[in-house]
Amino acid sequence: MRRGFERSKADFGADRAATLASVAAAAGVSRQTVSNIFNAPHKVQLATRRRVEAEIARQGYRPNRSARSLRIQRSGLVGYCVKPPSPAGDPIMDRFVHSLCQAAERDAYHVLLFAATPDGPMAAYEHLVAQQAVDGFVISDTTVDDARQEWFQRRGVPFAAFGRRWSGPEIGAWIDIDGAAGVAAAVHHLAELGHRRLAFIGWPEGSGVGDDRCRGFREAAVERGLAVAGIAHTVNHYDDGRRAAAELLAQADPPTAVVCVSDELAVGCDTAIRDRDLVPGRDVAVTGFDDTSSAALPTVSLTSVRQPLQEVGDHVVRLLVDALRDPGADPEHVLLVPELVVRHSTDHPDRTVP
Amino acid sequence: MRRGFERSKADFGADRAATLASVAAAAGVSRQTVSNIFNAPHKVQLATRRRVEAEIARQGYRPNRSARSLRIQRSGLVGYCVKPPSPAGDPIMDRFVHSLCQAAERDAYHVLLFAATPDGPMAAYEHLVAQQAVDGFVISDTTVDDARQEWFQRRGVPFAAFGRRWSGPEIGAWIDIDGAAGVAAAVHHLAELGHRRLAFIGWPEGSGVGDDRCRGFREAAVERGLAVAGIAHTVNHYDDGRRAAAELLAQADPPTAVVCVSDELAVGCDTAIRDRDLVPGRDVAVTGFDDTSSAALPTVSLTSVRQPLQEVGDHVVRLLVDALRDPGADPEHVLLVPELVVRHSTDHPDRTVP
Repeated sequence: MRRGFERSKADFGADRAATLASVAAAAGVSRQTVSNIFNAPHKVQLATRRRVEAEIARQGYRPNRSARSLRIQRSGLVGYCVKPPSPAGDPIMDRFVHSLCQAAERDAYHVLLFAATPDGPMAAYEHLVAQQAVDGFVISDTTVDDARQEWFQRRGVPFAAFGRRWSGPEIGAWIDIDGAAGVAAAVHHLAELGHRRLAFIGWPEGSGVGDDRCRGFREAAVERGLAVAGIAHTVNHYDDGRRAAAELLAQADPPTAVVCVSDELAVGCDTAIRDRDLVPGRDVAVTGFDDTSSAALPTVSLTSVRQPLQEVGDHVVRLLVDALRDPGADPEHVLLVPELVVRHSTDHPDRTVP
Repeated sequence: MRRGFERSKADFGADRAATLASVAAAAGVSRQTVSNIFNAPHKVQLATRRRVEAEIARQGYRPNRSARSLRIQRSGLVGYCVKPPSPAGDPIMDRFVHSLCQAAERDAYHVLLFAATPDGPMAAYEHLVAQQAVDGFVISDTTVDDARQEWFQRRGVPFAAFGRRWSGPEIGAWIDIDGAAGVAAAVHHLAELGHRRLAFIGWPEGSGVGDDRCRGFREAAVERGLAVAGIAHTVNHYDDGRRAAAELLAQADPPTAVVCVSDELAVGCDTAIRDRDLVPGRDVAVTGFDDTSSAALPTVSLTSVRQPLQEVGDHVVRLLVDALRDPGADPEHVLLVPELVVRHSTDHPDRTVP
C-alpha cells in the first residue's frame, strides 16, 4: 500500500522536502492552521481548510495520520450500520446517509459504514469498539426491545440515535420524527376535505414507530369526531396492503378514505381501490407515509408524509459531537414534525368523495 | 472521547490487566492469532475472528488501533463517495453500498463513506488522500470525461471502479454491467413475443452508460431484422419520458413496443400509453432498466433489466484488494451480464399486441 502513495512523489516531482512550513507559506496561512487541519480541523473555516488541503495534496505533504491519531486519541470516524436492502428498496436510507455524511464532514468527521453480521445484533459494534475504529456511533431504526443504547452506555461508547427509546429509561441523545403528528396531519387534511368515515392500515402491533403512527390516527379521528371504519394490522408489503384494503372496502359501510402507515401499504391500497373499478383519490382517498419515489409516480400520485431527513442528519451529528465533547452533559431529545405532501390520491381533480 | 471508553472498565470490572495473552487464553487461540486480529485480520477465519473479538470486547483489551496503524501503515478503510440523492431516490445506491460493506468486511476492511463537496469533483478525494484516511478508493458512476482514474494514477492511490473507462487509455481495474447486453435481452424478448416495430427512449448522447445501452438496442434490432420506429434522447425524468413516448406513439406508424434506457423514462412511457387510453403490456409494450422498486409496483409491473449488485460489490472489493496487495499487477476488467425481469408491461395476460 505505502508503495502506491510513495510512488506519486517520484512520478510527479512534488517537493520531497514538503513540510508544515512549506505548506503554510504556499497556502498563505500560519503553521498553526496547517497543524489544525490535522489535529483540530473543526477550528479551521471550511474555505481555508479546502485551500490548505489542496496545497497539502499538491506538495504531497504527509504528516502521517496514524501518528497524529495516536497523539490525539481520535479516529475522526463515526460508525453507522446499514440495514440489508429490502426488495422494495429503502425509501429513506440513501437520503439519510447522504445528509449524515455531509453533516459529519462539517464537523471534520467521516462516516465509517458497516453491515450487520449474522453473529447477532451487537457483533459488528463489538468489533469496531474492540478495534477502536470509531469515536462513536450513529444508530437508526430504534425498536421497542433495542439493546444498543444500553450496550453503549455500559461500555461508555458515545452515540446518538435517529429514533427515540420506545421502552425503558432514557439513555443517550436522540432525534426523531413525530410520526403521530404526521399521520394526524393526514387525518386533518381528510377531515377538511369533508371525509367523515376513515380506516387505518398499520403494521403489526408492538413496533414503536407503527404504534405511534396508529395512535396519531386514533387521536386525530377522535379530535375531529370522525367515524373509524376499521383498523387493520399487517406486514409492510404491497400485497398485504392490497388484501387489508380489499377487506375494509368490502364492508357494508366502507370508509371513504384509508390512512396507511407506509407508502408500501398505501400503494397496495391504491391497487385494491382500482380492483373495485374505482379511482384512487376520485372515489376513495388514500394516504401513505415516507414520500417515497413510488408516491411521486404520476400513475400513483400518493398523498404522503415526508420526513425532513436533511435536518435529521444535521441534528444527529450535532448530538453525537456534543456527546463526544462533553460526555457528562444531559442528553438532548429532539422531535421534528414532518410535512404532508398532498397529491391526487386525496385531492383528485375529478373528486366525487366524500 | 477517551474518557468515555475508559469509563467502561471501571464500571464493569473488566480485567484492568487484560493482555494479548489473557485474550488468547480465554478465546482458546494462539497469541499470534490475537495479534493477527489487529495486524492481519484477513489471515484469521471469520468465525475465529468473531470469537476473539467478542473476548477482546469482554475483557476490554485495547491494543490501540492508532499505534498499530502506525506500525503497519494501513488504515483498514476503503473510501467511497456517495452521490447526492435525486428526488426520485437512487434505485441502486442502497443495494450497492450494502454489498460493498459486506464484501469489504470479508477482507477485514471498512468503508469510509463521504459526500462530494461543492469545491470541485476532486476536493473530497484530495482531503482524504492528504489525511491518509483510507488505503484506497472504490468509485462508481464513471463518466466519459471522468478525471478520477488519472488523478489516482498520478498520485499512486489504489482504487477499483464500478464502471468502465468510457474514453482514453485503460487505467486501473474495473467491473461493469454490460448495459448493451441488458437492452439487447429486452429486444430479443420483444422479438420473441412477435414485435416487429420498436422504438427506444434514451438519455442525451455523450453519456457512456446511455450510449452503450442505445448501441445494444440498435445492434439487437438489426440482428433480429426489426423496424426502428424512432430513437428519442431525453433527460432522465418521468415527465420527459412521458413526452418523448407521446411523440413516438402519435406517429402515423407507431411502435408496438418501446425500450427505455431507465425505469424512470419507462414509467413516463407507461403514463403516455395510458394517456392514449391504452393499457401498457396489453396494447403497447414497454421495458425499463434497473428493476427499481417502482418497476415492481403492481400498478406498474414493468419488465426491466436487473443489475447483479451483490456480485458487483464482491468483485469491486476483490479488485481493490488485489491492487493494494500487488500495485504492480495488471489491472483486471470484468463485465457482468444483467438479467431481464419479465412483468406485465411486456407479458400482459390480456395481451393483444403485436
